[in-house]
Amino acid sequence: MGRVVVEVMPKPEILDPQGKAVVGALPRLGFTQFTGVRQGKRFELEVDGEVTPEILEQARKAAEQVLSNPVIEDVVAVVDASEGVAAAAPQHAGPA
Amino acid sequence: MGRVVVEVMPKPEILDPQGKAVVGALPRLGFTQFTGVRQGKRFELEVDGEVTPEILEQARKAAEQVLSNPVIEDVVAVVDASEGVAAAAPQHAGPA
Repeated sequence: MGRVVVEVMPKPEILDPQGKAVVGALPRLGFTQFTGVRQGKRFELEVDGEVTPEILEQARKAAEQVLSNPVIEDVVAVVDASEGVAAAAPQHAGPA
Repeated sequence: MGRVVVEVMPKPEILDPQGKAVVGALPRLGFTQFTGVRQGKRFELEVDGEVTPEILEQARKAAEQVLSNPVIEDVVAVVDASEGVAAAAPQHAGPA
């Protein structure tokens, strides 16, 4: 069984209230090293069988059209994350 | 400036209504290859300077204590994602 991981982050110019809340909470809990936090989404898409280049292309389209809101979010990665392909370098899609 | 990426997913035995909604929507929009979807979270933690092993350890603790709810979520990755370290293999933390 194959798996594609899609990662979506708020665009840099977009305010990220969840990230702001986390970066405010961390120092109160003893984590003082972190100067900024942004929170995004991570999707795992399962497929029967192997992740072919066609499936990856479909996942890329689904990432742009369904899994992200292109007005406020960037798709930062669409990667084959099937068992045994764990070391694959992320394929960055669209502007980072 | 360094960056640590933390990835959190719902535990496999936990119902994931967001993922269920996505997997229901995809075929209606023409994406018929995907048999399952799970939705989790991706955090980018910024640090001044380099990501040292100590910072990575702190990020791991923050991931377990602040960024995830250990009752229903697993921390699936805590990775140095600073510029130029992009090809680093994910360091999986805790049970997958």
